[in-house]
Amino acid sequence: MSDILKNDLLLRALLREPTPRRPIWLMRQAGRYLPEYRATRARAGNFLAMCTNPEIACEVTLQPVDRYPLDAAILFSDILTIPHAMNLGLDFEAGEGPKFERPVRTAADIAKLGAPDPGQDLKYVIDSVALVRRELGGRVPLIGFAGSPWTVATYMVEGGGSKTFGQIKRMMYEAPRDLHRLLAVLAKATILYLNAQIAAGAHAVMLFDTWGGVLTPLQYEEFSLRYMAEVIDALTRMSAGRRVPNIVFTKGGGAWVKKIAAIGCDAVGIDWTTDLATARQAVDGRVALQGNLDPAALFAAPDTLRSETLRVLASYGEGAGHVFNLGHGITPDVDPERVAVLVDTVQSYVLGAAPRN
Amino acid sequence: MSDILKNDLLLRALLREPTPRRPIWLMRQAGRYLPEYRATRARAGNFLAMCTNPEIACEVTLQPVDRYPLDAAILFSDILTIPHAMNLGLDFEAGEGPKFERPVRTAADIAKLGAPDPGQDLKYVIDSVALVRRELGGRVPLIGFAGSPWTVATYMVEGGGSKTFGQIKRMMYEAPRDLHRLLAVLAKATILYLNAQIAAGAHAVMLFDTWGGVLTPLQYEEFSLRYMAEVIDALTRMSAGRRVPNIVFTKGGGAWVKKIAAIGCDAVGIDWTTDLATARQAVDGRVALQGNLDPAALFAAPDTLRSETLRVLASYGEGAGHVFNLGHGITPDVDPERVAVLVDTVQSYVLGAAPRN
Repeated sequence: MSDILKNDLLLRALLREPTPRRPIWLMRQAGRYLPEYRATRARAGNFLAMCTNPEIACEVTLQPVDRYPLDAAILFSDILTIPHAMNLGLDFEAGEGPKFERPVRTAADIAKLGAPDPGQDLKYVIDSVALVRRELGGRVPLIGFAGSPWTVATYMVEGGGSKTFGQIKRMMYEAPRDLHRLLAVLAKATILYLNAQIAAGAHAVMLFDTWGGVLTPLQYEEFSLRYMAEVIDALTRMSAGRRVPNIVFTKGGGAWVKKIAAIGCDAVGIDWTTDLATARQAVDGRVALQGNLDPAALFAAPDTLRSETLRVLASYGEGAGHVFNLGHGITPDVDPERVAVLVDTVQSYVLGAAPRN
Repeated sequence: MSDILKNDLLLRALLREPTPRRPIWLMRQAGRYLPEYRATRARAGNFLAMCTNPEIACEVTLQPVDRYPLDAAILFSDILTIPHAMNLGLDFEAGEGPKFERPVRTAADIAKLGAPDPGQDLKYVIDSVALVRRELGGRVPLIGFAGSPWTVATYMVEGGGSKTFGQIKRMMYEAPRDLHRLLAVLAKATILYLNAQIAAGAHAVMLFDTWGGVLTPLQYEEFSLRYMAEVIDALTRMSAGRRVPNIVFTKGGGAWVKKIAAIGCDAVGIDWTTDLATARQAVDGRVALQGNLDPAALFAAPDTLRSETLRVLASYGEGAGHVFNLGHGITPDVDPERVAVLVDTVQSYVLGAAPRN
């Protein structure tokens, strides 16, 4: 595959190299706020059918990149592809979120699980990566991703989304060794999965730890961070002569950015509840930072949206190593015109992207 | 009313006075995990009927204090009594959480709202406080409470619980002055309400800021903390010759404890995601701390529960100023026997409750 990349701002910023301006992409940028996405989804029938069909996944991945001058594409997929490949009976009920027909609750349930072979059991994802990579034609980098082992485990054990995480916390306290066994399988599966995405053409990869923030500081280190460290440690570092940066994002993990930075990742995602200046001080130049506009700022009138965006840009300060993003995924009720304002504001901001003198 | 209090450990710990051991109470201690609570609820019909009936509210408030040697009672009530008194059509649908028939969305909606007169519109709460106070007979102190203006506003604007807080955040960005007007009314209502609870016999009061943690640091100061500061500032300090301590609890506010401590409250509640040692360092002796066992630790076998409890006790360190609690409300699926283990473990721990030498 060709390795000409016309816009490599994202990769340079993730590696803390100087860039003429700060790159921007948005979590869940290929999503329901876009009318073209809703049209494709209506045609495809449902969310899982979109994920598992490489042509549709590719089409949807490109939609936001075609509409806005974003600095990266992120593969349209889901963090639950791995347990889906483990045959737990994943279903996305309309308006209900994901459900597993066969949740994982016992040592026997866990003993049955093995790491899926990405080339076989997750071929649709790998094919999607290759197809997007071809269709992008080097316009911008493609980001691959996976859920963190802890976050994926929460869905597998709870049988779907949860508010209190009672089932997995019960397992954590009553049978921690079982939970560790589950997380170890998921870490192994995640390594194979992300490395297959890199081999198929992903320029960067991201770990989404959506539920690390429901843990105590000690539990976070033992049950979430430790397994993300295992994954980061085993990722392919170079592909087609280019460094493949990685990003770790724990929602609600603002207090732990220093510990996250220490696992050897290239960048840390920051949600909107932590100031970028605070986070930057904590990581002390070890990693790049990605974030962190409050997704709800996209409801604001253009002038307010601009000033909120400038505030986030300024909060990072001078120097390299900032990738602009929201602090969490974009919500379905956002007006697509507001996204244009956001992208333009970030890309017009040149001050503060050069290296420190 | 008699002011003999046989056990004033809670009040002393909240005021950072030395105590022979650390007091313990549990958020939502009068709740569904207790069979006697479920029996009362079945008789009363529904949650709101329990809150609005002083005899039932009193009965339920006393249940956990009768069963366990807890060091405080907390009034059985709800943070939505104020908007209920504002006639917004509150309903608790089974398993669905609270819903308001008439959510507050516009400047006109807000202009119609006034602070309820506690003695009239919230008489059932004030009567409950007086009745509990009488029935307790000085066994332990009684804690009164209210939701924080921000947290109560989220329910009023969203029309119920929310995951993304899209409606109130839209108001925050599009019409911040309207939101400030709403919060000002709620702050005024909360002051009247808590002072009426104190006048009726509450020995201490607590502000529950359940949703402050969904804000950015700047938004938290502007829309949540500022109004809690107004409330704290206007609370009755002395009642029946005794100081009335107050507690502020922002769930997910671990990063902001220093700022919370600076508003002049007596104690800060800490959820389980922040280490008590970290929080204590941040507040530097200005306030007492309340917390913070992971509520899910109550699922653990007794030995594990004991060691987790001891870890929390030790994490506070030596010296006065720690009230043991969970980091969030107790969940309905907890075995009441485990609560007995927890209470016993805390009350048997004498080390570290004396003042520093």
